Amino acid sequence: MSEMDDIQYMQEALALAAKARGYTSPNPMVGAVVVRNSNIVGRGWHHAPGLPHAEVEAINDAGKNAEGADIYVTLEPCNHYGKTPPCTRKIVEAGIRRVVVATEDPNPFVKGGGIDFLRSMGIPVDVGVCREEAETLIEDFIWYVQNDKKPFVILKCAATLDGRLATSTGDSRWVTSSASRKYVHELRHACEAILVGSGTLKNDNPSLTARLEGVETRDPKRVILDSSLSISPDARVLNQPSNAETIIVTSIDASMQKAKELQAMGATLIRVPCRNNAGETYNRLDLPYLMNELGKIGVMSLLVEGGGRVAGSFLSETLVNKVMFFIAPKILGGDDGIPVCRGKGPLLMKDAFQLKRVDIARFDDDTLVSGYLK
Amino acid sequence: MSEMDDIQYMQEALALAAKARGYTSPNPMVGAVVVRNSNIVGRGWHHAPGLPHAEVEAINDAGKNAEGADIYVTLEPCNHYGKTPPCTRKIVEAGIRRVVVATEDPNPFVKGGGIDFLRSMGIPVDVGVCREEAETLIEDFIWYVQNDKKPFVILKCAATLDGRLATSTGDSRWVTSSASRKYVHELRHACEAILVGSGTLKNDNPSLTARLEGVETRDPKRVILDSSLSISPDARVLNQPSNAETIIVTSIDASMQKAKELQAMGATLIRVPCRNNAGETYNRLDLPYLMNELGKIGVMSLLVEGGGRVAGSFLSETLVNKVMFFIAPKILGGDDGIPVCRGKGPLLMKDAFQLKRVDIARFDDDTLVSGYLK
Repeated sequence: MSEMDDIQYMQEALALAAKARGYTSPNPMVGAVVVRNSNIVGRGWHHAPGLPHAEVEAINDAGKNAEGADIYVTLEPCNHYGKTPPCTRKIVEAGIRRVVVATEDPNPFVKGGGIDFLRSMGIPVDVGVCREEAETLIEDFIWYVQNDKKPFVILKCAATLDGRLATSTGDSRWVTSSASRKYVHELRHACEAILVGSGTLKNDNPSLTARLEGVETRDPKRVILDSSLSISPDARVLNQPSNAETIIVTSIDASMQKAKELQAMGATLIRVPCRNNAGETYNRLDLPYLMNELGKIGVMSLLVEGGGRVAGSFLSETLVNKVMFFIAPKILGGDDGIPVCRGKGPLLMKDAFQLKRVDIARFDDDTLVSGYLK
Repeated sequence: MSEMDDIQYMQEALALAAKARGYTSPNPMVGAVVVRNSNIVGRGWHHAPGLPHAEVEAINDAGKNAEGADIYVTLEPCNHYGKTPPCTRKIVEAGIRRVVVATEDPNPFVKGGGIDFLRSMGIPVDVGVCREEAETLIEDFIWYVQNDKKPFVILKCAATLDGRLATSTGDSRWVTSSASRKYVHELRHACEAILVGSGTLKNDNPSLTARLEGVETRDPKRVILDSSLSISPDARVLNQPSNAETIIVTSIDASMQKAKELQAMGATLIRVPCRNNAGETYNRLDLPYLMNELGKIGVMSLLVEGGGRVAGSFLSETLVNKVMFFIAPKILGGDDGIPVCRGKGPLLMKDAFQLKRVDIARFDDDTLVSGYLK
């Protein structure tokens, strides 16, 4: 088996893994193929928590052909009893000859265990084929398990070339192209939760659901930052059919009465500490505290959608892992429009938040600049 | 000769034309190739005003091989005596068999004259091969001759993702990557003049020259908007070796004394009318008037480099032909940085300046979004 073949089979396994995007949380996406005599004889991927792991699916799909075959799997096979028996045992029992793994289990407590076990059983294991793609595919999972179950935070912004998300009157329909907006729905579908501030809720009254034609989406949890519980009971997020909950994040001392009303409407309330930074006229909810709370309820990835003050706060609290910045090919041309980020910036340009591993993509005439802050 | 061959030869002619970028004003860039028996036997391009036209160069390069050959030329051959004799006569005399032209002369007074003459002499002329590339190559020239010699205005902006050109302290070193900044020097080299406001001059003290390694650049004229003649006599633009003049644009009633001092230093002064828009605290120089003045002294293309107020003014006066917007992959994250555009924007997003024929390019990790407003 040549190195090129290895890459080709692993890419097939990665493509299978990605089919379950949005459905596997709190598990990662994993894909596997079984290869015998240069033919793929079994395919599998992890569909959802509680369902079989990718390796098991692929081996079952291969049937008797698994014996003496190679298996390519995008993540190190598990070696412990969880909701399903260990995949390493399945691999041994099926008579697999060789295992190719894209990347190790990121959990420091189990990392390498599956690989070691297989090798101890005399099965050769090659590790690192398509490592970068495999780790990018499950970047949220890797972050989550390695950082005390804090969510992987994606900051999504959309602005004109001159950095405005709306005109001076608050009009923002539409900044970006329909292709960009469609892609945002894919992002929503892929994340466990979307977060917006109460200002965005008031201005846009968004539904914050994931709507993709022909796809049965799993709506993300909707998280609303609302320190003073100013949300209107008529807000769309409180009155729509959706398979995900609406979480209202407020301060410890916000109205009990209003809280009860909202809970009666089906909303979940999370109360977090609050603080006033010098010179600020509004209450700042304790976002690091909130990240812990969201992590505890299984939010592995959080899509922060705005508005400008929320974006500025997540940045200044250094909570952002990844930035996805949509730029429309239009210019408001003044300084009276609503800025895409608000708050206090650095004094020197060299202290700006600098995106790493930058990717530039095009959606119709819009540009999407993506990159990492961590 | 197949259509594919025609395209291939014309692309060669276009590449030759582009070799003289920055040197031909007020003439357009033109390239030509002579083709005989499927071989390019002659190449030429217009190097500079007063030097031979592309067709003449290519035919001379072909020598005797021009007889019975085809010529590909990126712009309709001239049919009149200017600084050189008409190219149409040269083509006839050389015994050229067929002429392929990318686009007609844009000057409404001479358009089609060369083509008609050649046809009247029995030489077949095909028009329109690679028309779009040919017209883009000389877009400034086309605009200039069709619009009463007004400059083709390119607005160049450079900002962070959140639309800031500097921090709250005015620090802007550097927003963009070295690859972007290098490309800006190519743009400067290609334009007859660069324009900045006095604020940019004060903050950055730029040299506004075109610096390209290994290239003998023709510096653009430097145009400074300075309604109150606040420019320091120590400003770099007044004290550097350069092969181009510095033009200071000021109001009719600005200090005569200071004007004389600056002229003594070698600067050219242009005085233009001034007006105050309601609510504005500064004098606004009459930019449409200035465009006429610059056109008269042969400024075919003008690169507007900022700052934010100048960008906003050119946009609101609808003087911008083309926008070139460099976006660095960094975020200041607040609203206290200096906005890339200043002034009053529209009330509705649909009334934003919308770029047409958008192009998206990458310079290191920066994005360049280009497009047209006219």
